[in-house]
Amino acid sequence: MAHIQLPEGLPGIVGPLAFSPETAKPLLELAEALLRGPNTLTSAEREMIAAHVSYRNECDFCQLSHSAAAAAHLNGNYDLVEQAKIDPERVGVSDKLKALLTIAGKVQKGGKQVATGDVERAKQEGATDSEIHDTVLIAAAFCMFNRYVDGLATWKPRDPDVYREIGQHTARLGYVGRDYKQPLKAIAALHGCGRFFIQQSRS
Amino acid sequence: MAHIQLPEGLPGIVGPLAFSPETAKPLLELAEALLRGPNTLTSAEREMIAAHVSYRNECDFCQLSHSAAAAAHLNGNYDLVEQAKIDPERVGVSDKLKALLTIAGKVQKGGKQVATGDVERAKQEGATDSEIHDTVLIAAAFCMFNRYVDGLATWKPRDPDVYREIGQHTARLGYVGRDYKQPLKAIAALHGCGRFFIQQSRS
Repeated sequence: MAHIQLPEGLPGIVGPLAFSPETAKPLLELAEALLRGPNTLTSAEREMIAAHVSYRNECDFCQLSHSAAAAAHLNGNYDLVEQAKIDPERVGVSDKLKALLTIAGKVQKGGKQVATGDVERAKQEGATDSEIHDTVLIAAAFCMFNRYVDGLATWKPRDPDVYREIGQHTARLGYVGRDYKQPLKAIAALHGCGRFFIQQSRS
Repeated sequence: MAHIQLPEGLPGIVGPLAFSPETAKPLLELAEALLRGPNTLTSAEREMIAAHVSYRNECDFCQLSHSAAAAAHLNGNYDLVEQAKIDPERVGVSDKLKALLTIAGKVQKGGKQVATGDVERAKQEGATDSEIHDTVLIAAAFCMFNRYVDGLATWKPRDPDVYREIGQHTARLGYVGRDYKQPLKAIAALHGCGRFFIQQSRS
């Protein structure tokens, strides 16, 4: 049971987002800018960074949702995403992404853990300053999202299909939208994730 | 030296905010909603939660800036803020705020560290669900801001007056504004903090 009275039937972060529309708006706009905005890193790469940090923070809802989003961007290649999440150095991703995942893992421990050598390695593998900036901020942001979800002891669905649906939805439509008209029901929330609440807070 | 090439002369988080206006906008709007929006917790109380978490994360720029903001809200009572930051159980704040600072300290370690007993204690001391929600999210957000500042190895001013000015400015005018017209210079940035960049990203 969650630590506070959240709207019923809303999984993970969706409950607190519905509880607090004033903070949901910037939180979802941040997720949209970081994970889906124009970028030389693909959304799949950025979702893998999010999933890796969430895995390290042991936040089940976030790591399953963002793994599913990454896999949806990769035509369902869950195996690659799972490997990147658990052991970035050994997977079949680019050497640049390996270096960025290593930086993200350091940020998860604490900002000061990022060493000059970690950043030099990423630059040698072709990472730009913007890509390093975005990696640090994605990792930092998921240290927030993970704590928000678990610090309130939110409800975590057990059905893997729920995460697959959330992932497919966010990969297709993102974290912020203006056309969400469905009623607030649990299943609609699963499909619509936080977008309903942005709509609410703007109306 | 920062890990990436940031605009020169901008302290702490102001450099990365200037580097990335797309993410600066939701980050500053989040800070504004959390620390200055309508709330039954005072801004002084919320800034003390931010300072306590930043202290625990050993992020000097954030803890000094937000201590100064809290003190500015308390007519310059730095002693109380310093005590709350370092040892919340022993200071002259309300029992409710002590309980909320304890929750914030747990969130700093990790979301799952918040125990049912911590939340029950806060409720017994009169904390509402909204106040518990906001405490968890402020603490989580500063786990992000702190990592953003230190994960990029940003420049940290040594002069204590700089933090006093930042604190007084944010206590008076907040984190988001629309009337900031001064040129982008180091000292102007100190007074205007991130507000300039919101202006930029909207223009």
